[in-house]
Amino acid sequence: MSSVRPLFVVAGIGNGTGTGAATARLFAKSGYRVALISRGPDYLSKLATELNQAGGEAATFPLKDYTPASIKSAFASLKSHWPSSPLRVAVFNAGYGVWKPFLDITEDEVRESIDTNVLAAFAFARATLLEFTKLELETANEGGVAGDARKKGTLIFTGATASIRGNTLTSAFSASKFGIRALSQSLAKEFSKQNIHVAHSIIDGTILTDRTKSQRKDPSWEADQDARLDPDSIAKSYLYLVKQDSSAWTWEIDLRPAHEKW
Amino acid sequence: MSSVRPLFVVAGIGNGTGTGAATARLFAKSGYRVALISRGPDYLSKLATELNQAGGEAATFPLKDYTPASIKSAFASLKSHWPSSPLRVAVFNAGYGVWKPFLDITEDEVRESIDTNVLAAFAFARATLLEFTKLELETANEGGVAGDARKKGTLIFTGATASIRGNTLTSAFSASKFGIRALSQSLAKEFSKQNIHVAHSIIDGTILTDRTKSQRKDPSWEADQDARLDPDSIAKSYLYLVKQDSSAWTWEIDLRPAHEKW
Amino acid sequence: MSSVRPLFVVAGIGNGTGTGAATARLFAKSGYRVALISRGPDYLSKLATELNQAGGEAATFPLKDYTPASIKSAFASLKSHWPSSPLRVAVFNAGYGVWKPFLDITEDEVRESIDTNVLAAFAFARATLLEFTKLELETANEGGVAGDARKKGTLIFTGATASIRGNTLTSAFSASKFGIRALSQSLAKEFSKQNIHVAHSIIDGTILTDRTKSQRKDPSWEADQDARLDPDSIAKSYLYLVKQDSSAWTWEIDLRPAHEKW
Amino acid sequence: MSSVRPLFVVAGIGNGTGTGAATARLFAKSGYRVALISRGPDYLSKLATELNQAGGEAATFPLKDYTPASIKSAFASLKSHWPSSPLRVAVFNAGYGVWKPFLDITEDEVRESIDTNVLAAFAFARATLLEFTKLELETANEGGVAGDARKKGTLIFTGATASIRGNTLTSAFSASKFGIRALSQSLAKEFSKQNIHVAHSIIDGTILTDRTKSQRKDPSWEADQDARLDPDSIAKSYLYLVKQDSSAWTWEIDLRPAHEKW
Repeated sequence: MSSVRPLFVVAGIGNGTGTGAATARLFAKSGYRVALISRGPDYLSKLATELNQAGGEAATFPLKDYTPASIKSAFASLKSHWPSSPLRVAVFNAGYGVWKPFLDITEDEVRESIDTNVLAAFAFARATLLEFTKLELETANEGGVAGDARKKGTLIFTGATASIRGNTLTSAFSASKFGIRALSQSLAKEFSKQNIHVAHSIIDGTILTDRTKSQRKDPSWEADQDARLDPDSIAKSYLYLVKQDSSAWTWEIDLRPAHEKW
Repeated sequence: MSSVRPLFVVAGIGNGTGTGAATARLFAKSGYRVALISRGPDYLSKLATELNQAGGEAATFPLKDYTPASIKSAFASLKSHWPSSPLRVAVFNAGYGVWKPFLDITEDEVRESIDTNVLAAFAFARATLLEFTKLELETANEGGVAGDARKKGTLIFTGATASIRGNTLTSAFSASKFGIRALSQSLAKEFSKQNIHVAHSIIDGTILTDRTKSQRKDPSWEADQDARLDPDSIAKSYLYLVKQDSSAWTWEIDLRPAHEKW
Repeated sequence: MSSVRPLFVVAGIGNGTGTGAATARLFAKSGYRVALISRGPDYLSKLATELNQAGGEAATFPLKDYTPASIKSAFASLKSHWPSSPLRVAVFNAGYGVWKPFLDITEDEVRESIDTNVLAAFAFARATLLEFTKLELETANEGGVAGDARKKGTLIFTGATASIRGNTLTSAFSASKFGIRALSQSLAKEFSKQNIHVAHSIIDGTILTDRTKSQRKDPSWEADQDARLDPDSIAKSYLYLVKQDSSAWTWEIDLRPAHEKW
Repeated sequence: MSSVRPLFVVAGIGNGTGTGAATARLFAKSGYRVALISRGPDYLSKLATELNQAGGEAATFPLKDYTPASIKSAFASLKSHWPSSPLRVAVFNAGYGVWKPFLDITEDEVRESIDTNVLAAFAFARATLLEFTKLELETANEGGVAGDARKKGTLIFTGATASIRGNTLTSAFSASKFGIRALSQSLAKEFSKQNIHVAHSIIDGTILTDRTKSQRKDPSWEADQDARLDPDSIAKSYLYLVKQDSSAWTWEIDLRPAHEKW
């Protein structure tokens, strides 16, 4: 297989049923080598096996935590695993959420939220941008995007309603999601001049995952495509962002189910 | 040709070199019948001829002005022209811009700006939504979008930087563009429950058109895909919005050239 | 009485129990001559009588409608009524609200909403700014604001939740309130260089007026200062904006009851 | 002196020439006991001496760093210093700013920015709210605010342009300022029900301090009240927020010099 196939990396795949995993599946199918960075080595292996059996080329880079050192080390591993594959797409989908009345949130939970979300996002962005800035514009022989996309790479951050609205119970979560949004905007402005595309999504609704299924226990909600976000639909929007022409790049896109009240 | 081919309508095609025309071209190529509503009958005819010669099916509905009566009448004409074609996509791209110090703007210019932008947008939305609400979800036999899109129709408003920021010289223009943005958000919330998708774009930069070319007279700017918005790239984003799955619809998308300073 | 006492003008006093009237009362008490511009000559007279009996100096300028011509004519009348009083504070508080499903709103209601809100706001701003731009900075002998305020005048627009959020039922109202907000931002940017202060309030809750009292019929709500906006409290915030030092002017202030859910 | 005089606490007084110090001066003059929490023991002592000589009652609580532990310990000290004084106003004005191209910012600088800004803001808010929630509404015998203010206390966070806009060079600073803004909004929504007022300022311009004076070296800029933010003007706006009636509280206020281009 060509050594210059483009490389896709995602941080945060949870248990393999949400946005991170769906994005990995879609980019694998679209011809990218897929590097999976996440906690939970079992879920990582399971997803990599699935992708490889489906004809993709995936490798896992388990994290013990989302510290900058761990993230840096995961990127070093993936570079040595695929030394000739240019990194072209990076999705930061990690996250730690705590929903509690403010005075019930412990110092440790605040720190965990800020670190796992904001500091990890900075470290992930740094590792990604160090790669992107070394590259030339992607060309057709890689098989990713080329032509009017005119890109060195695309970096996407997954946001949430809490990225634009603080609410009761969300002080720690919103503070970190607002922070990531600010980072994404700063980076979009700084790096677009170098043909590096940085984008931010606002996922404004409940995503259908194993976790939300077991919380809701409502088969009619699960079955209703208009009522909840399908991770595969989110993944399609990320692939769209990656393909956008350089004459019309998007920084921010909101996504919600048709029947969502907002 | 099948009578149920889906119908696309756009209001505002200028002289045929901007967003409205590019969108018409792309949707014609994608299998839609194309209804062109605009002032300037010569430009309308020229564009319709071009689309028809390229194998599309376009018709013109010239407006003498953007009053609600004229818009209503144009929709009546297009319905009688294609009685069996379901209206599936509508783009409101009309606009009147005046950039002047506030005290230099005349009462007539204020009124023209508000009427041509806001009142016309209301009338266009009304005519469109009266059609959409009569329809069932689109099915595959029409040839437009179907499956996971689960739509009766899509209504897109073209916005601008002035949609989110008032500035010196833009009082009248911004007031009208803010107004259209509010309309689009209200409609998105009201009609998404009926599987009607309403979206708003923020075009944050200069679009490459005959007019901007002659204002700039800068061939290197024209040639630089990273420096100005290509109407074809905007059109692609509109087609993307039309195709989005109902589990993840976007209300607002910003679009700017890679090298735009913002 | 000194002919140079500063002049305060407000457009929109409803039935004399809301924001416009409360603002008139507070500025009258603070030493301003008060010009009342509104529809409803009886309410106007009643309020003027009240202000004059309380030791103020008020005059009425009834409007038959909120057209630019009527507003211009009202300003001409107030200038000839008090030829030597410099206009220093102007509050645009007029408004027409229609809350209905989009397809139930008539063309006339859309036009009435846009005209009474946006076109009237432009006309009011124009008449005000034509006065302000002729003046020097206010000095202590007028008795209004002086010193660090360093102002020719202050123009305040009353906004609402609908100024920043379109919602089901609010398409026409939001479109006009977004429009006024854009106008206020454009004017703030353009005229602050001339030491003219333009501000916008976001009244995010229900104001206690005769009308809301009779709608709610809930004495405990009326009595609960934390639950609804008192027009007098809004008026205090407007007086505060008028007094701000030129080193720290506010464009936008949100106001809501302590116990409001938002 | 009455033991129930209300207590004002500010975190972050820099070298005593900016917002924190000006706020301390104004609240001391307005009858509050003043607790100064900051790094830089010499600047703290100097400011406390100044306030005490002017007839105020100030005490210093030097921090070695802005960790939660240090902040908690400072609050413990101030409570034992003035055991009977109810804490009524708290201003979080601390901050660490780094303006650099993203790839030049070190991991330590990112962490320092996030910790000194966001984690410190959480800790300061926690310490403050633990006090506020224990109190009854303020009454007239304290001499602070009472009557229509109907407050247990007011917590104000000082924001900046970077609180609402990420930019090149501001990735770390914006991420932290966005985070604080989210925190302030969450707290405003959660605690206003308990008559605790949480507010956020957006300081949108350059503040006149020793540091900005020495950076600019421009006496005409220093002298021009319309060109830069005077810390005393900002302090007045904070005192205004503290005095607002409970029927009309502000969450967010923007402040900029009259002649600022924005």
